[in-house]
Amino acid sequence: MRLKPRDTKFFDLFSVAGANIATATAVLAEFVAVPTEERAELARRMREAEHAGDDATHAIIEQLDRAFITPFDREDIYRLAVRLDDVVDYMDAAVELTTLYNPEALPANVRALVDILVKCAQLTADAMPRLATLRNLRDFWVQINELENEADQVYRHLLQFLFDGSHDPLTVMKLKEIVDQLESAADAFEHVADVVHSIAVKES
Amino acid sequence: MRLKPRDTKFFDLFSVAGANIATATAVLAEFVAVPTEERAELARRMREAEHAGDDATHAIIEQLDRAFITPFDREDIYRLAVRLDDVVDYMDAAVELTTLYNPEALPANVRALVDILVKCAQLTADAMPRLATLRNLRDFWVQINELENEADQVYRHLLQFLFDGSHDPLTVMKLKEIVDQLESAADAFEHVADVVHSIAVKES
Amino acid sequence: MRLKPRDTKFFDLFSVAGANIATATAVLAEFVAVPTEERAELARRMREAEHAGDDATHAIIEQLDRAFITPFDREDIYRLAVRLDDVVDYMDAAVELTTLYNPEALPANVRALVDILVKCAQLTADAMPRLATLRNLRDFWVQINELENEADQVYRHLLQFLFDGSHDPLTVMKLKEIVDQLESAADAFEHVADVVHSIAVKES
Repeated sequence: MRLKPRDTKFFDLFSVAGANIATATAVLAEFVAVPTEERAELARRMREAEHAGDDATHAIIEQLDRAFITPFDREDIYRLAVRLDDVVDYMDAAVELTTLYNPEALPANVRALVDILVKCAQLTADAMPRLATLRNLRDFWVQINELENEADQVYRHLLQFLFDGSHDPLTVMKLKEIVDQLESAADAFEHVADVVHSIAVKES
Repeated sequence: MRLKPRDTKFFDLFSVAGANIATATAVLAEFVAVPTEERAELARRMREAEHAGDDATHAIIEQLDRAFITPFDREDIYRLAVRLDDVVDYMDAAVELTTLYNPEALPANVRALVDILVKCAQLTADAMPRLATLRNLRDFWVQINELENEADQVYRHLLQFLFDGSHDPLTVMKLKEIVDQLESAADAFEHVADVVHSIAVKES
Repeated sequence: MRLKPRDTKFFDLFSVAGANIATATAVLAEFVAVPTEERAELARRMREAEHAGDDATHAIIEQLDRAFITPFDREDIYRLAVRLDDVVDYMDAAVELTTLYNPEALPANVRALVDILVKCAQLTADAMPRLATLRNLRDFWVQINELENEADQVYRHLLQFLFDGSHDPLTVMKLKEIVDQLESAADAFEHVADVVHSIAVKES
């Protein structure tokens, strides 16, 4: 039986990372809704959130360096930090690619996809503090999995739209890349939920 | 030295997951061979196999929740369950994308690629029960690796065909996405074999 | 406290894998610089490096089979071996796709991207022997992370070039696939650095 001290430091840091994901997703939701000329300012704020995410990840890993005993396996703490970081990285990549390609309009369903990411982000931000007790987490991974399935459906509709023959090939390629990053962000939320699930299985 | 009880429950569940992969791959082999109008019924059966795969994965993870001691590291059991699930997910995605884009004909080499997946599935279904003793598994990962190399060759020929200049760009994009899922399924078999290899290295 | 024998065998093998990555990257740097007709010979040498990488990986895993005690967790040794192999696999894939599609010219920025890979390879080859003491490794993962960020920038410029409207869609698709493999190689170096970082966190 391992010692499981209630070292609140890690839970605080995971809560910071979770809150930052909620911030980044809110910026993304604005980004896909505003006119083209307002994108630059939101891209700047997304980049800020991406840096804040990096800082949160590094803070967790440095705490791991210092800690003599840890509430979960060191490796799981490391992996959860990395997975949380992935979420923001994909959203940031979607914003960067949109800035790079600068399409006039994004397909309407992009907003539906981002709405799902907003829900995932809220669930994730709410779940992080519950790592301290590992209680009431089952709903988290069940709901994230359901939302990921919904995201899959919306993604397939987006593909159908892009390939309906009314867009030129280069535009399809560009928009598809942006949409693929958003779909990867939904997958990344599922990977966060998988790590939390795996921790719960091992520790409880 | 850890206790390694011969808890047959896990091996039974992995055998179920392995058998389901064989079923799903047989459905896929039919799907790529039938005329367009018969695809819908096979897509329905693939979706059934995909759900059965999810159920098998969940059964393994729930058993992990209940088990006090486990035949391998909890994490390896979890990872093997997830990797087995991935195989069916990629095959299901290939079928869904084919249904979505509804191309009249699939390139001839798609069948050659699926034939390799059928061989991988048989080897995997046969190997799962041998996890109980961890004996005679070396052939499994060696042969899966060889088949994955063959799949790679066929995949490259498919790319050459798609890019030979005789297809319009949107068709190339659609077919390439379908073919990419099949290639990912071959990779996913290799990842299953890698986990089995890694378990064998750690436990023997 | 686990026994941590200074079993030099593993460090020797990781050093061999690191040196092979440096060789493969040097071949890649030549490959992207020579005229089309000299590509075949370099592709042959890349394939040799890819086989040597496979051999190095297998030697590490066989040593893992034989070893009674290991300097790090068995799983981390396994993972590091696999991640090092990935680097060469992506570079080999870039070369194979270039041979397959045989484009007359590669975009100029491809050389800038490969230059970054050359730097990553040198850092990796130099870092492997330091695993024996786990000292002076922080610079390794910090610098690899910086180089991966640089690679990201160059990659985005390459996308901008490919999508500037002056290339036909099939050419864009082909070149993008080659460039994506190079970008994946940069990511793969980061994954190597992540595993080394994770080992250092756990073992020190």
